[in-house]
Amino acid sequence: MVLAVAVTTAASNKRVILKRYVMTGLLTEHAMEVVMTKAPPLTVSAESSVVVVKNLYISCDPYMRNQMIRHDTPSSIAPDFIPGEVLTSCGVMKVLSSGHPDLKAGDLVWGVTGWEEYTVINSPESLSKINHPELPLSYYAGVMGIHGLTAYAGFFEVSKPKKGEYVFVSAACGAVGQIVGQLAKITGCYVVGSVGSDEKVNLLKHKFGFNDAFNYKKELDFEAALKRCFPQGIDIYFENVGGATLDAVLPNMRLGGRITVCGMISQYNLEHPERVQNLFYIITKRLRIEGFLSFDYNCRYRQFEREMAEYLREEKVIYVEDIAEGLDAAPAALVGLFSGRNIGKQLIAIAQE
Amino acid sequence: MVLAVAVTTAASNKRVILKRYVMTGLLTEHAMEVVMTKAPPLTVSAESSVVVVKNLYISCDPYMRNQMIRHDTPSSIAPDFIPGEVLTSCGVMKVLSSGHPDLKAGDLVWGVTGWEEYTVINSPESLSKINHPELPLSYYAGVMGIHGLTAYAGFFEVSKPKKGEYVFVSAACGAVGQIVGQLAKITGCYVVGSVGSDEKVNLLKHKFGFNDAFNYKKELDFEAALKRCFPQGIDIYFENVGGATLDAVLPNMRLGGRITVCGMISQYNLEHPERVQNLFYIITKRLRIEGFLSFDYNCRYRQFEREMAEYLREEKVIYVEDIAEGLDAAPAALVGLFSGRNIGKQLIAIAQE
Repeated sequence: MVLAVAVTTAASNKRVILKRYVMTGLLTEHAMEVVMTKAPPLTVSAESSVVVVKNLYISCDPYMRNQMIRHDTPSSIAPDFIPGEVLTSCGVMKVLSSGHPDLKAGDLVWGVTGWEEYTVINSPESLSKINHPELPLSYYAGVMGIHGLTAYAGFFEVSKPKKGEYVFVSAACGAVGQIVGQLAKITGCYVVGSVGSDEKVNLLKHKFGFNDAFNYKKELDFEAALKRCFPQGIDIYFENVGGATLDAVLPNMRLGGRITVCGMISQYNLEHPERVQNLFYIITKRLRIEGFLSFDYNCRYRQFEREMAEYLREEKVIYVEDIAEGLDAAPAALVGLFSGRNIGKQLIAIAQE
Repeated sequence: MVLAVAVTTAASNKRVILKRYVMTGLLTEHAMEVVMTKAPPLTVSAESSVVVVKNLYISCDPYMRNQMIRHDTPSSIAPDFIPGEVLTSCGVMKVLSSGHPDLKAGDLVWGVTGWEEYTVINSPESLSKINHPELPLSYYAGVMGIHGLTAYAGFFEVSKPKKGEYVFVSAACGAVGQIVGQLAKITGCYVVGSVGSDEKVNLLKHKFGFNDAFNYKKELDFEAALKRCFPQGIDIYFENVGGATLDAVLPNMRLGGRITVCGMISQYNLEHPERVQNLFYIITKRLRIEGFLSFDYNCRYRQFEREMAEYLREEKVIYVEDIAEGLDAAPAALVGLFSGRNIGKQLIAIAQE
């Protein structure tokens, strides 16, 4: 049987490409370039096994900086970007045309896509359908996607919290931090967050329900701030920052404390990472420091999705996004993560549904 | 009823005291002094609830250096020593006279005692009887005591090894390292140790049955030595050294690797600990770094004691001690730990049974 396929095209496809490999030092917009290219065919054959999508939202993530570096050995987390080629991250998309039996035109999906208007997805099995259309679509590029799963798995599976424990979250207004803090409150923990502005302190205390929060830029001594907020010490530190922050936390940990290492955003722009000196507390306080990646917990996604959708509907979890409009704004939004310019989860809105 | 108690005395009691608190820098013998004092009464009333022991062997342990420092807040591990007072550590003793119903004169016991000829033990319930007299008595100040339990609990309970895994042990000829390596071999792991002399390399390879070993003093690049010994990477690192060694290990860990932190002997004499920079591998390799202290596993002692006695009798575990003769030799023996002068577990023999 021969299928008659109508091939339509869009005139152009705006995209953000890697201009050149990033070396050490601060990430700048010059690493990226917004270019116009020819759009791919927007209709594919039913036998093609690929899917064409229109991108609606894409996520800005700190680990993308690491993908911009030329590595001698491939990273275990995500493939390196290639100069001249489009950046990728998690996004929310609408299927325009499908060569995959489980997807059809009009479906709303989320998964890894390009920083561009239209993308041909060669592995459609990597896409997931959006099961909770009652929530804002953008949530699947954040709290209902990998960032929510990261917070959920990191807190419940790695930190293993108990009711009444003392929890400290750094970068606590970010994509993952804001969710971890609220999951800790739901668990019955005492939660304090550190952030980089008074506006974020206010959000933590009055919107996310943290017990306390401080603006680290206003503290002369990070360790003293921790002692003030945690006179009894810290049971769980959810690490998003690294370096000097970790060094300040270590002496304030309680016996048997757990440090769950999700990210180290303070370190990514440094030529040499800050060195940490208080590691002897690992022995004296019998600490467990554990790193994790959300994709090790993909098997827990369905349970997570059900619970998180419920929390969001019941407003037990409040979620704050910082949405930049259009691909032209994308490079600055990504760079802004490293100075904490964003308030809440940083996304780019590319198109309306 | 009045008990007639014959009080006998020894003329004198040689002891090693802390001369002055230790500051930063290399531990020297000048921190200690060997003095003669009046011996305590060697006979106690049956109602006294104390026990008098003659000390036979005492253990030299790196953590004693930390007890010689004046701390602002009490340590969670062991109480600080006090200038003018006797040092303490684990030892093997013979009961001379007992005010405790479970102990009688002539019993051989082990536990914390003084660095002196005779000690009055005020908490006799802290002493344990020696259940395997077929083994050398000195073993209870090491492989059959806390050092063996440290190796056993740290390896099996914290590292959680699987057959076929790649295990690296630093300070691998020491009190704990030599046992960990042999337990790893019994488990079916591939084991490599680092040590500070060719004589120790020889012991590891030809006496303890390590698969490989290297003398770190002869390696220009520790990390390259690890790459040579572990082309596939390291699943378990049993950490006895800290600092630069930890930094060299981190990039060589495999995904899901575990670093069990038992000690950091390279750091104890430093004014400021060496700073560690490769902590980002905790995330990319999803590592678990965990500290522990053997006394958290005291409840496992009976099981450990039974198994280890069996291994030793069957020569599945070979144990090497470095026994200095007499209390006069004790300060130098303790100081020698930090330069790796000892070959095997360092003890002091104080008296014959």
